[in-house]
Amino acid sequence: MKARMKDGKTEDIRAVWFENGEVRMIDQRRLPLELTVVGFKDHREVAEAIRNMTTRGAPCIGASAAYAMCLAGLNGEDLDEAAAHIKAARPTAYDLFYATDWMYARLRNGEDPVKAADEYADTTVSKCRAIGRYGGALIEDGMKLMTHCNAGALATVDVGTALAPMRDAHDRGKKFFVYASETRPRLQGMQLTAWELNQEGIDHAIIPDGASAYYMSQGVDMIIVGADRIAANGDFANKIGTFDKAICAKRFGIPFYVAAPVSTFDFDTETGDGIVIEQRSETEMTQIGGMRIAPVGSRALNPAFDVTPAELVTGFITEKGIFRPSEISGMRE
Amino acid sequence: MKARMKDGKTEDIRAVWFENGEVRMIDQRRLPLELTVVGFKDHREVAEAIRNMTTRGAPCIGASAAYAMCLAGLNGEDLDEAAAHIKAARPTAYDLFYATDWMYARLRNGEDPVKAADEYADTTVSKCRAIGRYGGALIEDGMKLMTHCNAGALATVDVGTALAPMRDAHDRGKKFFVYASETRPRLQGMQLTAWELNQEGIDHAIIPDGASAYYMSQGVDMIIVGADRIAANGDFANKIGTFDKAICAKRFGIPFYVAAPVSTFDFDTETGDGIVIEQRSETEMTQIGGMRIAPVGSRALNPAFDVTPAELVTGFITEKGIFRPSEISGMRE
Repeated sequence: MKARMKDGKTEDIRAVWFENGEVRMIDQRRLPLELTVVGFKDHREVAEAIRNMTTRGAPCIGASAAYAMCLAGLNGEDLDEAAAHIKAARPTAYDLFYATDWMYARLRNGEDPVKAADEYADTTVSKCRAIGRYGGALIEDGMKLMTHCNAGALATVDVGTALAPMRDAHDRGKKFFVYASETRPRLQGMQLTAWELNQEGIDHAIIPDGASAYYMSQGVDMIIVGADRIAANGDFANKIGTFDKAICAKRFGIPFYVAAPVSTFDFDTETGDGIVIEQRSETEMTQIGGMRIAPVGSRALNPAFDVTPAELVTGFITEKGIFRPSEISGMRE
Repeated sequence: MKARMKDGKTEDIRAVWFENGEVRMIDQRRLPLELTVVGFKDHREVAEAIRNMTTRGAPCIGASAAYAMCLAGLNGEDLDEAAAHIKAARPTAYDLFYATDWMYARLRNGEDPVKAADEYADTTVSKCRAIGRYGGALIEDGMKLMTHCNAGALATVDVGTALAPMRDAHDRGKKFFVYASETRPRLQGMQLTAWELNQEGIDHAIIPDGASAYYMSQGVDMIIVGADRIAANGDFANKIGTFDKAICAKRFGIPFYVAAPVSTFDFDTETGDGIVIEQRSETEMTQIGGMRIAPVGSRALNPAFDVTPAELVTGFITEKGIFRPSEISGMRE
């Protein structure tokens, strides 16, 4: 992704990579105010970075888990213990489990840890480029798009899932506009998606999460979101607020697309009922910068995701093409 | 409303009142961290307090406008100029215009300014109590309710509109639970509604605005919101995010009620298309405590209200009873 560094130069960097014996990643908690890169030499540190959301977004969690397993391999750790520890970092994103198992098999097979993890990350980026090509073809001049949370390069090592079609269309000279909903409580829409769109020069505005129906009623042509886990029937988990947008899109007849690599499909989970929703700390809601903003004595609920039923999805944009929910079984590798 | 004062004692106070030659009001921008009362002796100061949201909520804006006209009357100001100045404070809440005109007529008729304004405020509170009785009868033991923004005592001088049925049912010993959505960008749900529910001892939790569909899918029995202006056909303006909730409620078959006094009905505006939506400063979105939280170069949109079509409304809870949208014309005074 394009990123303006401290010296003012624009560099092309990834959200996570391996260099000089350590796993490096952008600290996504400090964006957009500061572009900071942190490095780790122990798989437990990477697991903690996944847990505390230094890195986030389902495909990027997958790549980070692959690099964590890479460190475990390099450091001669017990791979079963390491895999179990890494998988415990967060419960919802399917890529975490997929990537950890993928690396476990490669390491057990005696492959080079760095090469294997780089291959996982490179493959993720290639898939995102393919998602961009398939989804980008849907975007026409003058369109108004809407997205939620961040399913951009930061969430996927590079390029993005939901933002990949926008990058692709923008690179081909298409002119369009993006509504990015801010995504409370952690503001990934305001702080990460808007930052990425800004770096790319894509026209956009940040809106409150509750302004979706208002802007849809004024004309939105397409909604593209990412996914953290997609069940075999097409029900999918994504950032809290996605379900509300899908219901509103249905009312207004707006096409609603989910962009995700096939690795986000959990074919062993039949429906959305089987997806575990992470409940995060209420302090993400009730505090800002360590200061309490809610009344003392009031509690807050902070579900990180919701599950949108397949019937509200127009199509899944994957690296293998665009599939309707009824076509998912044909996508299975 | 019940309010725990600095000395720890609980007092029964209003959101706005007249005392010792000045208009006093709770500074709602400082809640829930601090309960501060401010006083004004000039109608222009009260207009500014309406504009900068020291006081807010359609019925309370109405009462504040009545007290502003009261000051103009006491100070021998030009009443036409004063009325025009007060009406310019904010564009959407119908009560602002209704109350200013009501006081103008009383003052022109030679009535005592304080008595007239107190009568307006007392009438508002009486209407809220009636709304509470009608709406409270809908609330049963074990129900889960949802509301948005603040349509409580703070928004209506006392008692509230959307919160009036909850106060009424709570006073009659009903046990129920309230989801209060935080209401970005100004957090009136988190900071005012939760504060009020807390003072009253009503069980509740704050949720992100985007968690509406998630909790509705798990079981919500009734949604009650306030309104800033209701058109003759039942389309109504309320805090941004209301429209999203109404669409979601329709999908889940959850009764969706709007609680408002008849003074919020604008019978001269035929449909929601005629309601002006206030666009507020983007800094309410992009800054917190004066610090920028959005990327430099990204803009934000901040519509204060949305318009929900009448077809999504189960009923309007007014001081004259509960009316379906089709019955509104029969309510006209």
